[in-house]
Amino acid sequence: MTASAPPGKPPLVRHLLETSLYVEDPARAQEFYQRLFGFPLAFADQRLSALALPGPAVLLLFRRDAFTKPGRTPGGLVPAHGGAGHLHLCFAIDAADLAVWQERLTTLGVPIESRVHWPRGSESLYFRDPDNHLLELATPGLWPDY
Amino acid sequence: MTASAPPGKPPLVRHLLETSLYVEDPARAQEFYQRLFGFPLAFADQRLSALALPGPAVLLLFRRDAFTKPGRTPGGLVPAHGGAGHLHLCFAIDAADLAVWQERLTTLGVPIESRVHWPRGSESLYFRDPDNHLLELATPGLWPDY
Repeated sequence: MTASAPPGKPPLVRHLLETSLYVEDPARAQEFYQRLFGFPLAFADQRLSALALPGPAVLLLFRRDAFTKPGRTPGGLVPAHGGAGHLHLCFAIDAADLAVWQERLTTLGVPIESRVHWPRGSESLYFRDPDNHLLELATPGLWPDY
Repeated sequence: MTASAPPGKPPLVRHLLETSLYVEDPARAQEFYQRLFGFPLAFADQRLSALALPGPAVLLLFRRDAFTKPGRTPGGLVPAHGGAGHLHLCFAIDAADLAVWQERLTTLGVPIESRVHWPRGSESLYFRDPDNHLLELATPGLWPDY
């Protein structure tokens, strides 16, 4: 990117449409997210499970290292991507549902790794998915707009 | 997670609140995202820049390896996380703005790595951020709910 002045105001970004996690076994990850959250399945094959999130948005569970070469589609080439590590995602929940979520995690055998109280009043529950990605459920009051 | 039946219907997830990228230099990444998209800054320090996305949501630009140990806060411990690789995010744009985005990327010196036409009519532009994360701008018609 050049250091020149930006070319005026950007057009509207509606919302984040896709976010990605890189997992050992997409079917295993899909099962976890569907059992815990009930997200509908948007697409699945051996290399990828895609779950429909409210928003609307899509959570992409990519098999690690299955997309590190560009992928041909009839409509063009999807460039390479791939990731490792224990990534972080957070989902917004209602404050009134916090205790229900806590109980649900416990009932499903998902250890709650931490609970954080934030300065503006939000409460967060932290836990792991089967690939040790760090998930958070947060009630309102965490960010200026939330 | 146990193999037992799920404990009834999950409470509502409102929306994805935070998604994360792991970058070499949060200030450099922040500058890229702000110049291209105009996302307001929600928080910044040496280890993290947080940008407010429409939704509302937050894009977290974490300095790679700065959060691989749990972080103490007055309200509790934030568990460890961290990532590597070239992760993928996609933002929803209006079909009418596709040409403007294409021109904006070019003007800002951001190479368009690929353009894909999807079966249901969506068009995607693919490009890279300064850490080679794979970004996509997609018009409606890509997913069942979008």
